Amino acid sequence: MINVGIVGFGYWGPNVARNFSITPGAKVVAISDADDKSLQRAAVSYPGARMEKDCESILTAKDIDVVAIVTPVSSHFSIAKKALENGKHIFIEKPFTASVAEAEKLIEIAETHKVKIMVDHTFLFTGAVKKIKELIDDGILGDLYYFDSIRVNLGLFQKDVNVVWDLAPHDLSIMDHILHMDPVAVTATGVAHFRNQLEDVAYITIYFPGNVIAHLNVNWLSPVKIRTTLIGGQKKMLVWNDLVSDEKIRVYDKGVEGLDSLEMESKEKAYGLRLSYRSGDMWAPRVTQVEALQGEASYFIDCINNNITPKNDGYAGLRVVRMLEAIKKSLSGGGALVRLD
Amino acid sequence: MINVGIVGFGYWGPNVARNFSITPGAKVVAISDADDKSLQRAAVSYPGARMEKDCESILTAKDIDVVAIVTPVSSHFSIAKKALENGKHIFIEKPFTASVAEAEKLIEIAETHKVKIMVDHTFLFTGAVKKIKELIDDGILGDLYYFDSIRVNLGLFQKDVNVVWDLAPHDLSIMDHILHMDPVAVTATGVAHFRNQLEDVAYITIYFPGNVIAHLNVNWLSPVKIRTTLIGGQKKMLVWNDLVSDEKIRVYDKGVEGLDSLEMESKEKAYGLRLSYRSGDMWAPRVTQVEALQGEASYFIDCINNNITPKNDGYAGLRVVRMLEAIKKSLSGGGALVRLD
Amino acid sequence: MINVGIVGFGYWGPNVARNFSITPGAKVVAISDADDKSLQRAAVSYPGARMEKDCESILTAKDIDVVAIVTPVSSHFSIAKKALENGKHIFIEKPFTASVAEAEKLIEIAETHKVKIMVDHTFLFTGAVKKIKELIDDGILGDLYYFDSIRVNLGLFQKDVNVVWDLAPHDLSIMDHILHMDPVAVTATGVAHFRNQLEDVAYITIYFPGNVIAHLNVNWLSPVKIRTTLIGGQKKMLVWNDLVSDEKIRVYDKGVEGLDSLEMESKEKAYGLRLSYRSGDMWAPRVTQVEALQGEASYFIDCINNNITPKNDGYAGLRVVRMLEAIKKSLSGGGALVRLD
Amino acid sequence: MINVGIVGFGYWGPNVARNFSITPGAKVVAISDADDKSLQRAAVSYPGARMEKDCESILTAKDIDVVAIVTPVSSHFSIAKKALENGKHIFIEKPFTASVAEAEKLIEIAETHKVKIMVDHTFLFTGAVKKIKELIDDGILGDLYYFDSIRVNLGLFQKDVNVVWDLAPHDLSIMDHILHMDPVAVTATGVAHFRNQLEDVAYITIYFPGNVIAHLNVNWLSPVKIRTTLIGGQKKMLVWNDLVSDEKIRVYDKGVEGLDSLEMESKEKAYGLRLSYRSGDMWAPRVTQVEALQGEASYFIDCINNNITPKNDGYAGLRVVRMLEAIKKSLSGGGALVRLD
Repeated sequence: MINVGIVGFGYWGPNVARNFSITPGAKVVAISDADDKSLQRAAVSYPGARMEKDCESILTAKDIDVVAIVTPVSSHFSIAKKALENGKHIFIEKPFTASVAEAEKLIEIAETHKVKIMVDHTFLFTGAVKKIKELIDDGILGDLYYFDSIRVNLGLFQKDVNVVWDLAPHDLSIMDHILHMDPVAVTATGVAHFRNQLEDVAYITIYFPGNVIAHLNVNWLSPVKIRTTLIGGQKKMLVWNDLVSDEKIRVYDKGVEGLDSLEMESKEKAYGLRLSYRSGDMWAPRVTQVEALQGEASYFIDCINNNITPKNDGYAGLRVVRMLEAIKKSLSGGGALVRLD
Repeated sequence: MINVGIVGFGYWGPNVARNFSITPGAKVVAISDADDKSLQRAAVSYPGARMEKDCESILTAKDIDVVAIVTPVSSHFSIAKKALENGKHIFIEKPFTASVAEAEKLIEIAETHKVKIMVDHTFLFTGAVKKIKELIDDGILGDLYYFDSIRVNLGLFQKDVNVVWDLAPHDLSIMDHILHMDPVAVTATGVAHFRNQLEDVAYITIYFPGNVIAHLNVNWLSPVKIRTTLIGGQKKMLVWNDLVSDEKIRVYDKGVEGLDSLEMESKEKAYGLRLSYRSGDMWAPRVTQVEALQGEASYFIDCINNNITPKNDGYAGLRVVRMLEAIKKSLSGGGALVRLD
Repeated sequence: MINVGIVGFGYWGPNVARNFSITPGAKVVAISDADDKSLQRAAVSYPGARMEKDCESILTAKDIDVVAIVTPVSSHFSIAKKALENGKHIFIEKPFTASVAEAEKLIEIAETHKVKIMVDHTFLFTGAVKKIKELIDDGILGDLYYFDSIRVNLGLFQKDVNVVWDLAPHDLSIMDHILHMDPVAVTATGVAHFRNQLEDVAYITIYFPGNVIAHLNVNWLSPVKIRTTLIGGQKKMLVWNDLVSDEKIRVYDKGVEGLDSLEMESKEKAYGLRLSYRSGDMWAPRVTQVEALQGEASYFIDCINNNITPKNDGYAGLRVVRMLEAIKKSLSGGGALVRLD
Repeated sequence: MINVGIVGFGYWGPNVARNFSITPGAKVVAISDADDKSLQRAAVSYPGARMEKDCESILTAKDIDVVAIVTPVSSHFSIAKKALENGKHIFIEKPFTASVAEAEKLIEIAETHKVKIMVDHTFLFTGAVKKIKELIDDGILGDLYYFDSIRVNLGLFQKDVNVVWDLAPHDLSIMDHILHMDPVAVTATGVAHFRNQLEDVAYITIYFPGNVIAHLNVNWLSPVKIRTTLIGGQKKMLVWNDLVSDEKIRVYDKGVEGLDSLEMESKEKAYGLRLSYRSGDMWAPRVTQVEALQGEASYFIDCINNNITPKNDGYAGLRVVRMLEAIKKSLSGGGALVRLD
């Protein structure tokens, strides 16, 4: 039995607690939150667990194997460091840390203590992302051209992070997982409209090797909620609309015809003609309905029991933080290109 | 009666010819095209007009008042220059010219010869853009926050221009007309996936004074056609979907509640709370169904007869070209910020 | 404090129990279900309530004020009869009873014992139906022309009822509530495709006075889920799509122009012309997001405490059952007209 | 060369004329219309054809092979009769005739004179209907359960026909073509809301052998335009939305699981369980974009030249008229079942 301690029982913590509590082989034994009301709610739901106002005792408790850290990003490093140093595996909210340096340090500590880090990139465990990953790995889309994501809504302004740190980690972790490529450079633009000086609208471009380009549009001031990702490949193109209950993923048999053969011809001849386009069937593969966080919690317990490195380990978390840091730098430089290689 | 000569009878020329031909007070008297087949098609539709393989005679003909230039942008300057120097008003395809210098020169020549330039920013004459302009001018949306446009489809690769010069002039001219503000700076990113080395995917950010930001997403490799513009304002927000036949424009009574009063409070207090959001009715104003090009042609004849400066005059064309030139510069600099002021 | 006993803890019972349990002034004191597993689930969720395999004790218990009957329709009459005779108010699942005779008898018993009946027409308590009712009562739509509802999906075949008794009670109760008119006649067609001989596709027409017509399309064999109701009025027309999260109700300023004035003219003249149509704005009023069943439970407690007759009382239940009975008769007569007046 | 005479140049006539005029092997040689303005418009478009105020001369002219009859249905019989008696093939608007008797008589005359009748069931020549027909004929959907069509909009009231005769011929001809079954009985309900006493809302059920059922919802008073057909089959189900430009047809791999094996078991056992449902991929086959009327005109010329019986011949027209006549009878009987066998 893996004993889990939950640090933070605010908005997302209850979901993490619930999913670990129903995972076979895991047990929620302790919960901490600085806020009394949150702790009272936790006590009602988990009568068998101990409640702590201070997380210290959880980070050091002998009977705890996993610490789930569900606190604001600014507190991640110090909490995670102590947990890891005490030999605990950690399950930690996205984004992993507030800086690359912090992420690298945590990874180092975890390796020293031979414990595991899982960063809560929940979307990787949705039926939709699993299906997209499968389609791309199977070569159905062919070589990729671009990854273009829109994640906008009338958002909840955060106290301390801008729209990029709030929304983009989702897309960055999905993109990292699906493309499996190291980004070359980043540029980001955006503005803050309110007195808190935190950007509420931002646009991010990420360059990858081989002319692959990614773009993220994140916005807290949109009257309509949009969660749409377009992925263009040489053979097929895909649209993922996460807001519909059925047919979330549509695969289009569309593309540019005959470009390969055109490569052979002289440039003049080839581009003197307008190219023709292929437009075939559309296909919406069945996407399994699963509770992503449930799958993720089970997977972490499995990784621990069988000594497997999670796909969303510290390095995955680090890759996302590295992009976030570069985005931050570009944003403050008015969209300057920030190289990552 | 205003006599019109059409230069170029390829893809768009027939539409221009047809709309001038049915405009009261205008008459299509001559058409030129270097391509024999195009000229034969023109001859069948306009038995009363003279057909010219070379456009020279149209540019100088005594009986011609207006020259409509519907040729590739690279040829605009030389054709327009000659027409203007011969005292002809010109109706010219977007983008106006291939460079700022060319646009400025043509404006100068037109002023010297006291003739008018109308750049074919067709979208300004659609019911949708007219309605959006009206809503914004009436203050319905309040101060603007952002203008975010997506114009993607499986596109026709052009021989000589990239996706920016092909698609963005539409959005730039609409944005210029609606916002009526001078942009401060531009950044653009994008890549070319094929041998012609012309960008087929591009992302453009435009900064305006007062923290207003605009963003354009143009893409020739999208499996689905999207033509959606979000405009966020302090009072209301608007979504324009140009692909639906009804309810193209939706105005949302949505916004961030109480930000003005929050301005008064201390920063700590204000942002310690999550702000609440207003979510009210949605309203889709009726949009008049009109043939935009028909309205534009009539308007030009009216401008000539009554000596009115068109809203889409040479200066409007110049403003768009100035942005295109800056976008080009930024694109080749990997997204570097290009100042426009 | 009103003490509630729940009879039936299968699919819908847990929802009823939960909503009464969180209603101020109400308390769930006992739950019965013939199925052991269901009763065990109930015991976990309601440790303070007593669990009964047989419902008898609940129907007669001194401490119980309200019996919520959440069992198959075939058992409604006998359970409700006993509860009413023992002076309990009843909250009862739709459809109220299996026949008009049963419904009339229960109403009579309730009146004798001065207790209340509330039939669980949950939809009446949704934000959407409340808003539609309000719009129609305020005369926004003008005189009504028709009510046309589609409720189709890949359905769960029921053991003992056809698609009409499963799905149509929703629409019939909504229609009854909104139109507030006595139907004149009913016809229904449909077929059974499987061995159980229960109709899985059915079409129902209901005639009202004044040329108002209603139509219901219910189908258990549809690949897509549709929940759409069109309501046509003289002044405006309305579309209710219950499957979208925003803008569920759309009010169209559309209609037939000038029909009133045409009434004055001679028939020949009037219809020699094609009539023109009015097409104006569309408006999506904000619909409050509420848990309908929660509002319904609170309303019942309020009706009891303040001796108010519920809008969804036994007579409302009877009106729906009367239509169901007529539909059944018409269906077995191949669509024969069954008069209701 | 097949010479075509057009009788009627109102709303639809110009389309028929244009499509025959561009069909290889056909020539429009004469056009008649009682209305002077219509005739003048025809003269401008067809300078080579003779214009006739009276259609008589076209029906008897020596040089005419095909008479295209594009007049109100009340005039079809007399015009068609004369044309056929004079040895002309006829292309005739839907619905074929105003009664079964008329249709039968015209078929008889055509057979006597060895000439062909093509009823303008244009939809049969659309890419969508061709694809649906192909899918069903290939057994992709399996045995059919139902055909359910909705065709509603804010309609043009007709002078002399109700919404059934205006809109239902489309669906009836499509249904007849796709199902290829003889209907057993019909019921129809509907009401007229205006002084002309013509039904503007109507609902039609058609029973076929083997528990196949069809339903048509036609409405001239709908604020939104809907053109959706659901076709349910044992293996797969299909949704055709004719208003979208892409993905008009969606084929769902959905159905009721295990019904065949259940057939083997005892009834009690089978229906004691809720059946499970199959929910797999969705597939939108590419639908060719064609101008249906152009394909139809070419097909008629081909039928004449090669002595082929058109699929939309007089018998197809008769089958539709027979259903319309039964619908009329049922409608005036308040929804009474009218047998067709």
